[in-house]
Amino acid sequence: MRAPDFVVSPSRDDLRAAATRLAPHVRRTPVMEIDGGDLGTKARVVLKLELLQHTGSFKARGALNTLLTRSVPVGGVVAASGGNHGAAVAWAASRAGVPAQVFVPATSPPVKARRIAAYGATVVVVDGYYPDALAASREWAADRQVTEVHAYDASEVVAGQGSLGLELADQVPDADQVLVSCGGGGLFAGVALALDGGPMVLPVEPERCRTLHAALAAGGPVQGEVGGVAADSMGAATAGRIAYEVAASRGITPPLVPDDAIVTAREFLWERCRILAEPGGATAFASLFCGVVRPAAGTTVVVVVSGGNTLEIPGATSEA
Amino acid sequence: MRAPDFVVSPSRDDLRAAATRLAPHVRRTPVMEIDGGDLGTKARVVLKLELLQHTGSFKARGALNTLLTRSVPVGGVVAASGGNHGAAVAWAASRAGVPAQVFVPATSPPVKARRIAAYGATVVVVDGYYPDALAASREWAADRQVTEVHAYDASEVVAGQGSLGLELADQVPDADQVLVSCGGGGLFAGVALALDGGPMVLPVEPERCRTLHAALAAGGPVQGEVGGVAADSMGAATAGRIAYEVAASRGITPPLVPDDAIVTAREFLWERCRILAEPGGATAFASLFCGVVRPAAGTTVVVVVSGGNTLEIPGATSEA
Repeated sequence: MRAPDFVVSPSRDDLRAAATRLAPHVRRTPVMEIDGGDLGTKARVVLKLELLQHTGSFKARGALNTLLTRSVPVGGVVAASGGNHGAAVAWAASRAGVPAQVFVPATSPPVKARRIAAYGATVVVVDGYYPDALAASREWAADRQVTEVHAYDASEVVAGQGSLGLELADQVPDADQVLVSCGGGGLFAGVALALDGGPMVLPVEPERCRTLHAALAAGGPVQGEVGGVAADSMGAATAGRIAYEVAASRGITPPLVPDDAIVTAREFLWERCRILAEPGGATAFASLFCGVVRPAAGTTVVVVVSGGNTLEIPGATSEA
Repeated sequence: MRAPDFVVSPSRDDLRAAATRLAPHVRRTPVMEIDGGDLGTKARVVLKLELLQHTGSFKARGALNTLLTRSVPVGGVVAASGGNHGAAVAWAASRAGVPAQVFVPATSPPVKARRIAAYGATVVVVDGYYPDALAASREWAADRQVTEVHAYDASEVVAGQGSLGLELADQVPDADQVLVSCGGGGLFAGVALALDGGPMVLPVEPERCRTLHAALAAGGPVQGEVGGVAADSMGAATAGRIAYEVAASRGITPPLVPDDAIVTAREFLWERCRILAEPGGATAFASLFCGVVRPAAGTTVVVVVSGGNTLEIPGATSEA
């Protein structure tokens, strides 16, 4: 396996180049304004519907940017993923015409493994959570000519996710605040770097997957426990170094949301907007329901709905 | 009960006034371009995501325009519906601050009655099917000062649905063709009138709910049989007179799509775009899968995804 590149934040040129590189391949996902009054706020609330992206999450951006940037050996690419990154790597590898091997923790929903396979990747299911899958993927890759695509902590990945931020700058130029769900922090870092000098970008973490919070408290990324309703997509366990640097240098404290707020946010998105987000994809939105983020009257807050890889409709089981 | 107004097509001024009237209340639903190659076409394909509208379908537009246009008596409004129209009337009445009485057949899914009640309407469940609910609603309304809101064949309703067409003219000014699902024809008529002189607007009907097709063959609306996967939202049985006049005067033959194309279109929208449409909402899109509509290379076709009131995810049963 190639040694991982030195982890460094992408520059503004890297971010712009990634956006140009990705434009013919990724969807320009739409934004939609909803009535802030329905959420008890006098702010203008705009949803960025990134769950409509290829593979059902923003991860398609970072994965494809990596494959279009690096020279990939004949052995192809390897990734470990709770699901969304794996599907993205499988999709990107298919676009780039290289093989992909994806290690998935057994705790992830079966539909995610099925979709990764549907994009043409070889799927290996590993007992445990994401860190277990990551360890297994590295053991497998150790003596092979393959490129590892990290789920969040690589410059090309962060630059790819940043293309979402550049889209937002064009779609909602008057945004005051942008809320993104934060697992490993790749989306947060990319969007924050893309919007540097513009709106405040806040990384929202589930209380039970508070990896960036823990990193900021410890002075650097540390391994923590993960659990709760969003663990399959937010359970990175260790924050990315890039995300840590971006948050620490800006003095940002990630808002923490309890599981019940995530459940309420998912219910609102489905019942009131017919948007079917997964728990991780609704985590940023949850911060408006539990009061941990209170945008000022008259301001514009953008909420990224970042993933929709679920088969569970809120309320459906009690109706069926 | 007030006698229904004489059925007449809305004028261009009516359409523009409706759009202005509705703007503070309805969502400007987003559009998203997808890769035509995934559908086997070299045309540019743009989805208009109207299922994200309040109440989960375009019906909110026509219902609210009616309530904001007419002087509604103190008794409020009455409607019979187990589906999208009932939810739209309940929502619109709540916005307009008037009471709503919605008669629902006992055979309708409980979730639909629950949603109608959640918007503040009084729900009366009537034994039997839609005609029984309609009869009960008219008996109830006979000696009361209430306004009946028709589901599709009234000038204010068609003008309200037309606001979607005016949005499209702004969002996709270079559209060559617009495909809309057609049940009673209110959406088709409104969008066709709004885009008069612009792109061709085609009303797509399920083979088993071909009411506009039958009207054009008979020289006027006739009652027909309805069935198939989209009957719950497309089974108007009799086309609207306004829709008939609009189609006949333009020499339009509605494309017909089989049920399996509707199923395939729904699967594509969910699996590839994370858009969860109901069968009626995916009927226009189905025309691109069965070859009944073949847009020319290089042209731009807009497909309205018009409703999302479902609890069934394609493929979910085999995963659960």
